Amino acid sequence: MKGFKFSGIHAGIKKNNQKDLGLIYCDKPAVAAALFTRNKVIAAPVILCKEKIKSGLCQAVLVNSGNANCFTGQKGIEDAKICSKLTANTLGIAEELVFVSSTGVIGAPLPMDKFETGIPDVAAALNENRTDDFANAILTTDTHNKIVQKTAKIHGKEFSIMGIAKGSGMIRPDMATMLAYVVTDVDINAKELKTALLAANEKSFNRITIDGDTSTNDTLLALANAASQVKINDLESKKLFQSLLDQVCFELASMVVKDGEGATKLVKIIVKGASTKEDAFKTCETIAHSNLVKTAIYGEDPNWGRITAAAGRSGADVDPEKIDLFFDDQALVLKGLWQGGDAEKKTALIMKKDEIEITLDLNLGEETDFFLFCDFSENYVKINAEYRS
Amino acid sequence: MKGFKFSGIHAGIKKNNQKDLGLIYCDKPAVAAALFTRNKVIAAPVILCKEKIKSGLCQAVLVNSGNANCFTGQKGIEDAKICSKLTANTLGIAEELVFVSSTGVIGAPLPMDKFETGIPDVAAALNENRTDDFANAILTTDTHNKIVQKTAKIHGKEFSIMGIAKGSGMIRPDMATMLAYVVTDVDINAKELKTALLAANEKSFNRITIDGDTSTNDTLLALANAASQVKINDLESKKLFQSLLDQVCFELASMVVKDGEGATKLVKIIVKGASTKEDAFKTCETIAHSNLVKTAIYGEDPNWGRITAAAGRSGADVDPEKIDLFFDDQALVLKGLWQGGDAEKKTALIMKKDEIEITLDLNLGEETDFFLFCDFSENYVKINAEYRS
Repeated sequence: MKGFKFSGIHAGIKKNNQKDLGLIYCDKPAVAAALFTRNKVIAAPVILCKEKIKSGLCQAVLVNSGNANCFTGQKGIEDAKICSKLTANTLGIAEELVFVSSTGVIGAPLPMDKFETGIPDVAAALNENRTDDFANAILTTDTHNKIVQKTAKIHGKEFSIMGIAKGSGMIRPDMATMLAYVVTDVDINAKELKTALLAANEKSFNRITIDGDTSTNDTLLALANAASQVKINDLESKKLFQSLLDQVCFELASMVVKDGEGATKLVKIIVKGASTKEDAFKTCETIAHSNLVKTAIYGEDPNWGRITAAAGRSGADVDPEKIDLFFDDQALVLKGLWQGGDAEKKTALIMKKDEIEITLDLNLGEETDFFLFCDFSENYVKINAEYRS
Repeated sequence: MKGFKFSGIHAGIKKNNQKDLGLIYCDKPAVAAALFTRNKVIAAPVILCKEKIKSGLCQAVLVNSGNANCFTGQKGIEDAKICSKLTANTLGIAEELVFVSSTGVIGAPLPMDKFETGIPDVAAALNENRTDDFANAILTTDTHNKIVQKTAKIHGKEFSIMGIAKGSGMIRPDMATMLAYVVTDVDINAKELKTALLAANEKSFNRITIDGDTSTNDTLLALANAASQVKINDLESKKLFQSLLDQVCFELASMVVKDGEGATKLVKIIVKGASTKEDAFKTCETIAHSNLVKTAIYGEDPNWGRITAAAGRSGADVDPEKIDLFFDDQALVLKGLWQGGDAEKKTALIMKKDEIEITLDLNLGEETDFFLFCDFSENYVKINAEYRS
């Protein structure tokens, strides 16, 4: 996208020559908005960026994988500051305009020597087309890059939004997923950008879970550089921009879940007919987090007893005798009653698909919500039992 | 124990000749107290027993495994009533005095023909010494029987408490674990028995988790037949009875966690120095439910970053720079700082043990709490992906 450059290199933070240091650079300071984790244990770079975002401006984002720089005390904050200073000096811009993010193991100090040599290298590699290198450099247990780009027109003028994310484990975003960057060439002010980002986040990153563990480093950062000269300043342009931003964030969030550690299936749970909005949310969330539901889906078993039992413990109003349950369009339970062997057989075929939609109608009210989640396989256990070894 | 008889047989509900029908019988009506699941999706036998317990009396308990009789509609309740009537007729006692429990697959109707032939058989097998048969007949994915018996003296007179439990998956009791029966020969009234049971439950079954899924059938039932002639009627006797009941319930709860589906380790998390009681509970509970913590423990990895990250998302007051973290007596983090490679090596040795105690001191206040949980292995996934097939 015009005005944005990207790069990603192997600086030596990770083993095996994997890329581990990425950089986004804007030709001029971009309008910026960001959302961060609500976890009370917060990584050093997040502490730093929470301060910097107050200016509403950002020109460069340095991201490393392999080390989360979290729970590293005062030294961790000093290290994050040094990284941001080195980047600013190398690029010849103000230090306040450089944001830093880290992802990886919690509790180990940053290997500062790798940053001293890596930062000049990653800056030298900057290029308009190196989005893949950047997307690759920020991965941890992810199996592939996650990039979404969308284009639309306002009053005949074209504008674009591109999102790049990483995340595969410790995913139950509470504000934003582990690391996601959205760049756009629209002309928008920081307040409007934040409003749009919050709305998009609520329908995407805040509706996904892989393992229920909220990260200490969750960051969603949006940069707008006005290069398209498309102004987001009236109802129509705001609506169109929001819609495109929603799509980018939703697709990125789906990619994160689909690449969940050990995941073999992507599941959308929709809860309808809840008494309150909160009940709809709680029911979705409890089902999406249930290990018994997730392992049943991995086993391709339409185990509706586990789904309804999870709804029952969610704290929401539930009347078992009113529940309808559908897998895609197939009804398996109607008014609390199992629809028999034929319905079960048809459902079992649906369970073999890679993407499944489950709809639970509580039939108690008008509220609805959804959650995206993945199944739970032996590989999740394997990946996480061996993570630090 | 004097006055109580037990039996357990294979009635044909489960495959492979496994025992699946158990019976407890008291020579005369016993004083009874019970706690049931708080899940809003409740199994038919639980609905029935919630009514019956109001009398404070019980003389027989029929328990089947292999089928939970849950989400079976009005027919499920009728079936549970027929089971209780058949048992009453066979034993020649009043139907109101017969309690029924079920555990197993949710959503399938009870195979009533197996109960018609099985109930006379299980009644004929009743015997004072067949506690093992009963304990065996109520198991599902459990790998062994769970029986605890304790004896003490009050004013020179001996009394006993015996507890029998099952539970290995869908374990996050919210009032009581899946199925646990406590019989005692003390002379106590129903109100006092309930009070003592509530107190013991709060420190045992309400402090354990295997997979975070609260069962639809959780039942903890206590029966007292006064056969020892030991009256529980003054401060001293109440204190002694409570202490013995606490021990029985705690040991049973520990056995349930230790036999958790796929579990290889038993872990006690103790949270100290919390600002409020609620914070202490929330922090313990969040850590005990974290899949990342549980898989790290399975991998024998003292991954303290995951433990502190779970504390951070628990909702409790947490100041990362005040946290101390111990594995058994080994400090790994003090005032938020990792204690280095030597401490890590010593902790890694502790992680190889079958039973581990983790203490997290928040250093913010005086409140403390604990939770028992197990690790999370590939076998949990395997057991639950294949459960219905």
